[in-house]
Amino acid sequence: MQQIWLSLLCGFCLRLVIFCMAEEGLEFPNFDGKDRVLDISERNYKKALKRYDLLCLFYHEPLPANKGLQKRFQMTELVLELTAQVLENKDIGFGMVDSQKDAKVAKKLGLEEVGSLYVFKDDRVIEFDGELSADTLVEFLLDVLEDPVEMLNNAMELRAFERMEEDIRLIGYFKGEDSYYKAFQEASERFQPYIKFFATFDKSVAKHLSLKMNEVNFYEPFMEEPAILPGRPLSEMDIVEFVNQHRRATLRKLRAENMFETWEDDMDGIHIVAFAEEEDPDGYEFLEILKDVARDNTNNPELSIVWIDPDDFPLLTTYWEKTFKLDLFRPQIGVVNVTDADSVWLDMSNDEDLPTPEELEDWIEDVLSGRVNTEDDDESADDMENPDGYVPADSYESHDPDEEDDNDD
Amino acid sequence: MQQIWLSLLCGFCLRLVIFCMAEEGLEFPNFDGKDRVLDISERNYKKALKRYDLLCLFYHEPLPANKGLQKRFQMTELVLELTAQVLENKDIGFGMVDSQKDAKVAKKLGLEEVGSLYVFKDDRVIEFDGELSADTLVEFLLDVLEDPVEMLNNAMELRAFERMEEDIRLIGYFKGEDSYYKAFQEASERFQPYIKFFATFDKSVAKHLSLKMNEVNFYEPFMEEPAILPGRPLSEMDIVEFVNQHRRATLRKLRAENMFETWEDDMDGIHIVAFAEEEDPDGYEFLEILKDVARDNTNNPELSIVWIDPDDFPLLTTYWEKTFKLDLFRPQIGVVNVTDADSVWLDMSNDEDLPTPEELEDWIEDVLSGRVNTEDDDESADDMENPDGYVPADSYESHDPDEEDDNDD
Repeated sequence: MQQIWLSLLCGFCLRLVIFCMAEEGLEFPNFDGKDRVLDISERNYKKALKRYDLLCLFYHEPLPANKGLQKRFQMTELVLELTAQVLENKDIGFGMVDSQKDAKVAKKLGLEEVGSLYVFKDDRVIEFDGELSADTLVEFLLDVLEDPVEMLNNAMELRAFERMEEDIRLIGYFKGEDSYYKAFQEASERFQPYIKFFATFDKSVAKHLSLKMNEVNFYEPFMEEPAILPGRPLSEMDIVEFVNQHRRATLRKLRAENMFETWEDDMDGIHIVAFAEEEDPDGYEFLEILKDVARDNTNNPELSIVWIDPDDFPLLTTYWEKTFKLDLFRPQIGVVNVTDADSVWLDMSNDEDLPTPEELEDWIEDVLSGRVNTEDDDESADDMENPDGYVPADSYESHDPDEEDDNDD
Repeated sequence: MQQIWLSLLCGFCLRLVIFCMAEEGLEFPNFDGKDRVLDISERNYKKALKRYDLLCLFYHEPLPANKGLQKRFQMTELVLELTAQVLENKDIGFGMVDSQKDAKVAKKLGLEEVGSLYVFKDDRVIEFDGELSADTLVEFLLDVLEDPVEMLNNAMELRAFERMEEDIRLIGYFKGEDSYYKAFQEASERFQPYIKFFATFDKSVAKHLSLKMNEVNFYEPFMEEPAILPGRPLSEMDIVEFVNQHRRATLRKLRAENMFETWEDDMDGIHIVAFAEEEDPDGYEFLEILKDVARDNTNNPELSIVWIDPDDFPLLTTYWEKTFKLDLFRPQIGVVNVTDADSVWLDMSNDEDLPTPEELEDWIEDVLSGRVNTEDDDESADDMENPDGYVPADSYESHDPDEEDDNDD
């Protein structure tokens, strides 16, 4: 597939190192030019499904006529080829499904969103809706290969569990690998690798977590106390339904592996977005305030704040700074309209002056009630007088990308 | 520079997304084809140094005749071009210095290691010796742009500081921006961004850290108690010398931003390498054991363990599994000979059976005394009988890559 282009690029790698190394042990892979990604069709899809432990299919539009788009498309193929090469020994198949040419196959396989990657594992399908780079994809697939339920056997492993406050986690206490545990395991497979499932057969671990036999707890990210799933023992569907109802957290961290899914899950066309570098003292302090607010408002289904740590997205940092007119060396919180990226930001320009949890809650109330929104300011005199948007109108900084004239050349 | 090749690749990006997005706010940059990286020569290097806040120069060998190497070279240029594009508004210049054609300039600028990237900031030169990918480089340069000393003003920021156990950190208590603080700041600039410097002017923060006025503490990674720098007030050189003497930690984490520098800093040709996923309960438990051992042996200058979290290097995970014959879904510790990647690994094949800190210390003693090494086993009968290296010889698994025949096709 795309032999000419690929052989042209043979010897390339996406993450390349040209260091003079007399030492061995840290060699980044270069794409070796070997064709590993299958061109899926009616003739070969069943065989491919049978042959591999995992089958990853990229569902794409037909090859575009536009040269620029063609190159993008070939670059995507290259990401898949490099991923396939890196994971060569893991029994994972890779293929491309053309939404036009292979429409029938796509329908049979249940592929729906053009531009998505679908992973087939046993009788399940997992949609990958994250950053399509080789490292994110490799990490994601390695996670999918792991057991969907992780066992906690002792106090130290319990401590590891308790530190994972950024993740949605479920934990169940079972006697052993009985039918109740199996139901829990079946449920876990439906959410792997996005939601983490843990189990223990150990009485002291269960006691520490105040878990009764066959009970399952649900930990929302950043919350101190778990929710107890109603009823026990629980069926697979009990668990699945509970998770589906509760998976949109009050405070959720943006992650490369499902960033587009998170972004598409907006609240009436907007996101409340907080930027905070956890490694930075200011950012850490702001994040702690955010967690306080999230804990106080965990029962408000209208509220979901997307926390972005700029350290996780170096290539997007300056894009965000430009689009939202922000300084991301400092923490920020604002409202973003996801259809046009219009935004309004809370003024925190004074270094000493992070908002208190109460002030932040007031601001969030203003957002939820519509008093603070991305539209009101668009024609305000303040905004016209300050075209670079850095000066706050009243107490809120605002920025409408359509009104800016900061285009380069 | 390399106009033809770059225009051929125009419209490309290294981390590409072809998702159908009706929503805005998460757009990864594509390389726009514009030439931003300078071809540095005797004519323009002084002007470039003056013009930018930061100047990044990639010091490279002449363009190779080999086509494969040429493409690698051009891919490096592309990494630099994309980085330059992303950081366009940050006043950073980028250039290439040919070790042959521009030998005179290189000498004047003090460039030494071909394949390294040198960053000029004010009168300092910072060598980048990490993964040459756009995201690692962008993150590194954003760090270099920040203030080299971070202020701690309150209890919450102090908590952020205390959580950074993976980093080498210095903290000083000063009255204000006086000459002693300035000396500390000057010292910090010599290590930015690799070693973190913090300061406080706040009495209660200082009290919490048991810091006297003008005192500086040095925190080795993973250690509970800091070392106090002898003497106070301290001159810039006092601080610089202390850091240089103590910067090789007993337990150090491998990071993309300086991975090659760390790897080159071996101990008589070997590294003790520990693989542990911090996010995994098993990995976390093993890491805690490692920290215990490191704390017990912090005064042994012969010991430095490199901790690698496989989650940080998805593209290298399968390479390491293959090279060292390991299963990296589980924690591992071993000795690697850096000249040939020959290695020997502690047998931890029983899930329930992580070593105790005492057992680990015994093993490390065996390594340091040479009783466990990568050579002894090379001709052993056990090894010949088990060519895939998975079965331990005595209690140690071993693997010599030269003896394996696991090449694909």
